[in-house]
Amino acid sequence: MTSIINVNLPQQSYEIAIAPSSLEQLGQYMTDLQLGKKVLVVSNPTIFKHYGEKAIASLKSAGFEVASCSLPAGERYKNLNSIQKLYDIALENRLERSSTMVALGGGVIGDMTGFAAATWLRGINVVQVPTTLLAMVDSSIGGKTGVNHPHGKNLIGAFHQPRSVLIDPEVLKTLPMREFRAGMAEVIKYGVIWDAELFSQMEASKNLNQLRYIKPELISTILTRSCQAKADVVGKDEKEAGLRAILNYGHTIGHAVESLTGYRLVNHGEAVAIGMVAAGQIAVDLGLWQQEDTERQNALIQKAGLPTKLPDGVDIEAIIEALQLDKKVKAGKVRFILPTQIGVVTIKDDVPSEIIRKVLRGM
Amino acid sequence: MTSIINVNLPQQSYEIAIAPSSLEQLGQYMTDLQLGKKVLVVSNPTIFKHYGEKAIASLKSAGFEVASCSLPAGERYKNLNSIQKLYDIALENRLERSSTMVALGGGVIGDMTGFAAATWLRGINVVQVPTTLLAMVDSSIGGKTGVNHPHGKNLIGAFHQPRSVLIDPEVLKTLPMREFRAGMAEVIKYGVIWDAELFSQMEASKNLNQLRYIKPELISTILTRSCQAKADVVGKDEKEAGLRAILNYGHTIGHAVESLTGYRLVNHGEAVAIGMVAAGQIAVDLGLWQQEDTERQNALIQKAGLPTKLPDGVDIEAIIEALQLDKKVKAGKVRFILPTQIGVVTIKDDVPSEIIRKVLRGM
Ligand SMILES: NC(=O)c1ccc[n+]([C@@H]2O[C@H](COP(=O)([O-])OP(=O)(O)OC[C@H]3O[C@@H](n4cnc5c(N)ncnc54)[C@H](O)[C@@H]3O)[C@@H](O)[C@H]2O)c1
Ligand SMILES: NC(=O)c1ccc[n+]([C@@H]2O[C@H](COP(=O)([O-])OP(=O)(O)OC[C@H]3O[C@@H](n4cnc5c(N)ncnc54)[C@H](O)[C@@H]3O)[C@@H](O)[C@H]2O)c1
Ligand SMILES: [Zn+2]
Ligand SMILES: [Zn+2]
Repeated sequence: MTSIINVNLPQQSYEIAIAPSSLEQLGQYMTDLQLGKKVLVVSNPTIFKHYGEKAIASLKSAGFEVASCSLPAGERYKNLNSIQKLYDIALENRLERSSTMVALGGGVIGDMTGFAAATWLRGINVVQVPTTLLAMVDSSIGGKTGVNHPHGKNLIGAFHQPRSVLIDPEVLKTLPMREFRAGMAEVIKYGVIWDAELFSQMEASKNLNQLRYIKPELISTILTRSCQAKADVVGKDEKEAGLRAILNYGHTIGHAVESLTGYRLVNHGEAVAIGMVAAGQIAVDLGLWQQEDTERQNALIQKAGLPTKLPDGVDIEAIIEALQLDKKVKAGKVRFILPTQIGVVTIKDDVPSEIIRKVLRGM
Repeated sequence: MTSIINVNLPQQSYEIAIAPSSLEQLGQYMTDLQLGKKVLVVSNPTIFKHYGEKAIASLKSAGFEVASCSLPAGERYKNLNSIQKLYDIALENRLERSSTMVALGGGVIGDMTGFAAATWLRGINVVQVPTTLLAMVDSSIGGKTGVNHPHGKNLIGAFHQPRSVLIDPEVLKTLPMREFRAGMAEVIKYGVIWDAELFSQMEASKNLNQLRYIKPELISTILTRSCQAKADVVGKDEKEAGLRAILNYGHTIGHAVESLTGYRLVNHGEAVAIGMVAAGQIAVDLGLWQQEDTERQNALIQKAGLPTKLPDGVDIEAIIEALQLDKKVKAGKVRFILPTQIGVVTIKDDVPSEIIRKVLRGM
């Protein structure tokens, strides 16, 4: 029942364990990692209500000293204020270098907990226990951590690999539908950039937009193949020197859309879906990709219940401008990840603004 | 005239260049490092007044786009507020991943600039241009960066190696005497823990407490041998898994004294001097070190114009308690670095509180 995926890195390797009901085994699982006795569980009120007790009980019965911290939910609290709260609690509970922060939540909790762990005492352990689909297949793996600056997403952060990632697919049952779909955007991304087989299996499924309509075997495939894709890419390029950039497929325009809609109207996965549609079309316009393949991609996005159009009222010039602020900008030129076939992408550094503009106008 | 010391690390090696008047060559020097065009020079008003123009002119004439930021001077501003200011300026100037922060200052500026660089865009370049003796021989080398938490020193931080360290000994001429002496505490530390020859050369000098009374050749020896000592230790143990802890000689009690005196009455080097005297006596009491050697150490500390006694009014029980908060605590036990001969130390994990108490009472 348990799938194990290894993330192999030069300095520190770790495993992703995927197993139904594993949340109840968290304490045992962490004992095997031989971490210090003190644990700080970080979550938010919603997730805590569902799973906090289970996680803490399991840790306590394995002999850990457990403190917990519930941060307000939502992307707008992913900021330095929340990090300062974590520092205060770390101090109160006298976390030591051998102590561990457990991120029990989605990407927001995962990114913040990872960053606090990266910077408390110059780095303590973090274990990721993702509770959203997006966090399971993406944000919990690979060591990117951080918070937002009032004027830009994820501008503040650090690379800090988790000691381990523990995925319990059961917790997806309480995940709001819209959040589930947002995670599917990243899964579709892996299909387009890395794993044509995953893409085909999703194409073959009648439904993709609600957990309960998807066969458990497909969920299992989605989790393992997506985690494997992420682990493969990160293992080849931990610090985003080259290849890892392909994980930003759909994210260049996606981030701009998220930021321009105040991180509220459109969530991360929806923004990525819109970004993939745009990037696909740019690839077609540049003669890199077949029209037919972009249509297959967009059909999958739609089947997953994700948007393929820009939300009303988003100013296209504002998007073009926001692209200039993106971390991926090198010497002022915007970099795009563009598909060349299903499962393969290329990196283009010099996409002309007029093409971006034209594609966005067409959406 | 230029001494080059290499810091050899598994992931990233760099050099420390020591050369009189090298500040005027900063631009050329950084050109050789092949960094991006954008540079943010971080300093404080005092240092900026003396050297800001020189540094910026040199960078500009080498073709860099230069922004600058002057943070308020003093340990009490080594906090997250100052880091947030750096983030804001980094954003305003659109620093990119290839951009560089230059830390022009003492350890306070170096630690903050290093931390901001470590966490902006998950890590950009930092070049250290230390202007205090302490920063030259210690804080600018080895990649420890960070800020203070209101309740504890350096609790927030990251490991982030500089791309290079450029030392211009000429700038020491404007350094206040008390600051010079504080740096000598770290130099004496290297003598005791690592380099008996450096220790002897300092013993042989008539004066040690003011720059202008020390022979230029001895200053040169002090800088190169101290940097070499630090580079040796860091090269063997970048992340403080073991050996690097010996650099904390004198710091265990030193940090407690600094913190209890509000980081004002006693500066870092003075606190370390007091800590070395205490550690030396603990080593003698435990039968690890000769009384005679501890007296040689204390005589050198005194010749450097540094304190060998606890300041009035510091509560010894408060020190004992503060030791519990130290990062070096493992499972509640305080770790001490203790000399066994001049140039050699050992790590002791289980020094009984009564001995610490007795030694402090005797000071
Ligand atoms: N570090 C990385 O590599 C990386 C990669 C991708 C995204 N991210 C970040 O991840 C964040 C988005 O993460 P997200 O999509 O998981 O959003 P999220 O963390 O905000 O979670 C979404 C919502 O679902 C709720 N929730 C989570 N799990 C639940 C469960 N099992 N049952 C019921 N409710 C649950 C949460 O309370 C929240 O309201 C963004 O900040 C993004 O920048 C990081
Ligand atoms: N990162 C590390 O490995 C490490 C190691 C040791 C100490 N530290 C840190 O270093 C800090 C202490 O550094 P410091 O002793 O350099 O103090 P500092 O940076 O506060 O500088 C001392 C004073 O000297 C002034 N000054 C600096 N250079 C000058 C010059 N050339 N001419 C005139 N005035 C000058 C400064 O304005 C300041 O007022 C502490 O915060 C400590 O935690 C870090
Ligand atoms: Zn994403
Ligand atoms: Zn020191």
